[in-house]
Amino acid sequence: MGLNSFQTSGNSPGTPRCLVGILGFGTVGSAIARRLTGPDSIPSLELTHICDRRARDKRARQPESSTNRIVWTDTFDDLLASDAEIIVEAIGGAGPAVDYVRAALLAGKSVVTANKDVIAHHGQALLLLAERQGRQLRYEAAVGGAMPIVRALGDGLGGERVTRIEAILNGTSNAVLSRMDATGCSIDEAIADACARGFAESDPSADLGGVDAAAKLAILCALGFRLRVSPSRIETRTTARIQPEDFRDASVRGGTIRQIAHADYDRERSTLTAWVAPVFVPRASLFARTIGPQNAAIVTGAYAGEMTITGTGAGGEATAVAAIGDLVAIARDHAAIVPAPILTEPKEMRGLVDHKLAEAV
Amino acid sequence: MGLNSFQTSGNSPGTPRCLVGILGFGTVGSAIARRLTGPDSIPSLELTHICDRRARDKRARQPESSTNRIVWTDTFDDLLASDAEIIVEAIGGAGPAVDYVRAALLAGKSVVTANKDVIAHHGQALLLLAERQGRQLRYEAAVGGAMPIVRALGDGLGGERVTRIEAILNGTSNAVLSRMDATGCSIDEAIADACARGFAESDPSADLGGVDAAAKLAILCALGFRLRVSPSRIETRTTARIQPEDFRDASVRGGTIRQIAHADYDRERSTLTAWVAPVFVPRASLFARTIGPQNAAIVTGAYAGEMTITGTGAGGEATAVAAIGDLVAIARDHAAIVPAPILTEPKEMRGLVDHKLAEAV
Repeated sequence: MGLNSFQTSGNSPGTPRCLVGILGFGTVGSAIARRLTGPDSIPSLELTHICDRRARDKRARQPESSTNRIVWTDTFDDLLASDAEIIVEAIGGAGPAVDYVRAALLAGKSVVTANKDVIAHHGQALLLLAERQGRQLRYEAAVGGAMPIVRALGDGLGGERVTRIEAILNGTSNAVLSRMDATGCSIDEAIADACARGFAESDPSADLGGVDAAAKLAILCALGFRLRVSPSRIETRTTARIQPEDFRDASVRGGTIRQIAHADYDRERSTLTAWVAPVFVPRASLFARTIGPQNAAIVTGAYAGEMTITGTGAGGEATAVAAIGDLVAIARDHAAIVPAPILTEPKEMRGLVDHKLAEAV
Repeated sequence: MGLNSFQTSGNSPGTPRCLVGILGFGTVGSAIARRLTGPDSIPSLELTHICDRRARDKRARQPESSTNRIVWTDTFDDLLASDAEIIVEAIGGAGPAVDYVRAALLAGKSVVTANKDVIAHHGQALLLLAERQGRQLRYEAAVGGAMPIVRALGDGLGGERVTRIEAILNGTSNAVLSRMDATGCSIDEAIADACARGFAESDPSADLGGVDAAAKLAILCALGFRLRVSPSRIETRTTARIQPEDFRDASVRGGTIRQIAHADYDRERSTLTAWVAPVFVPRASLFARTIGPQNAAIVTGAYAGEMTITGTGAGGEATAVAAIGDLVAIARDHAAIVPAPILTEPKEMRGLVDHKLAEAV
């Protein structure tokens, strides 16, 4: 570190830059790389490595200037052995990603991930590992895209007793439903439109089915209620069967339809009610006004009432904003203590049928 | 520390608790004290000292059980000499508060403040002092009450290039204006109503005049744009002269009136446009829907578009939620590095007249 180690401000000129490796050069990984090497690059961060199994092809398609000093590899072990201090995991899916995150932490690196599946299923174990290693695992990008709900719940509302979380957490479903609402088109047409605009994958079944939002809701239950909730225990009702006539019915009732993720926790009874479903929402509500790939959340607390937050929930640029925010936080303070939350399991879990909001369409 | 020093999780049972002293036992200080000693007390925090110049009277009015083990004093030097590790500054006003905050940092304590004046006028110098001392100065409660805008801008959007901030930052003005809007009453009646509900002080001139919101906006300009802006350089137009007929005119135009704090920054020209004024807002806008003492903000970024956040902006409970969140963050990691931002001054500042939104009433 030499003389520079006397610098304490992460953004001071002359501060040693934090070396970053990106794992997975898809939509998210490439957006992060563009930001770290573009005109708005971050003084405290230096992209040094990109690892992708098709590194050779993808590198060939990059403009030469942007990746001059970056090492490309198709081998994860190269990334592990590199001097990168933070690995950004951007390959997605639970599959090998969890092993890569674990290996990176074991190799003494901090990890930033956009992977909701890894955090929803393995978050506590990985956070404990990170804490033991004296490293950090940050995952703002795993929920809500550029809407900083992970920090808001996990840190900003650290002085609140959170009692309820209601949110639109899946940008694809919201783009599809708000398109049907606006145009009266069929769900297939709305899906095709969302694909064309880059708001949906070719197979949106995890989005419409509710599995995606359930994983994100499980993460929010850990942050807001300190509860360990397996996403598979969260009741999901599919949005895939919504018809144009459902919107006409909702309109007559003064509202529309949105895929809502709901969780409320009765601490005394240790009962968590949690579900993801397409439900009726009043026209004047925050959720009805949430259009396209936007995400939105209403968090209710016992002391300060409602806090709402909205932001762009999908797309490479929005996810990159969240991931880079995590990188900046780690670069600012490598040695920060981010303790793994101590989670308990709810004694009882309920789904939508038990809930007064049985207005699901 | 003994054996307990092997514990690393801030919330682990058996972890040494962080000792907290409260300076100023008014609305905010007493709300924080209630939370720290009540049924939702925080395992990592222990309230040990309360300092208030009328400590004797105020202590006598407290229920005996709640303050059994708390040392009361009317002398700031007692608090400075105590073993409290964090001082919560809750006396308000720029006057002696800034000296107390400085003295606390110099004595090796971390500080949590709800004081917008101290941060708007002396924030950078105090943050530099805190950094040099290896201590922390946190101020989530200084802007937006329980709406975690300080973290959202300063940390959550650390990966964004913020270009514009528009917000309702003064709960009193908003309560007055939304009351006039809803009932058609005069501003004096609306002020009396806000006082009766605890949303306004007996002298609301700093609230209505825009001085309060301008101080908060200056803090947000430092967080979002890294700009040093003296609150006195932010143009303010008073809300005190709004009449019921202004609302009728606004209604005809399809909207209403809110006190908006606006800042946008043209980085290339180094030009900051910043003002606080009562302006026309469309009926369907986030701001028109912000009622009573709520606060709301729309933050626009170059990469992820708009992020919005709302929450309870005034009152002891909401402010306590924000301050306790800061206490929890410090207790979690005493040694966290919170670098003072490196701020520049804008070359040019503009006010409302230059702005296209010259729809001010």
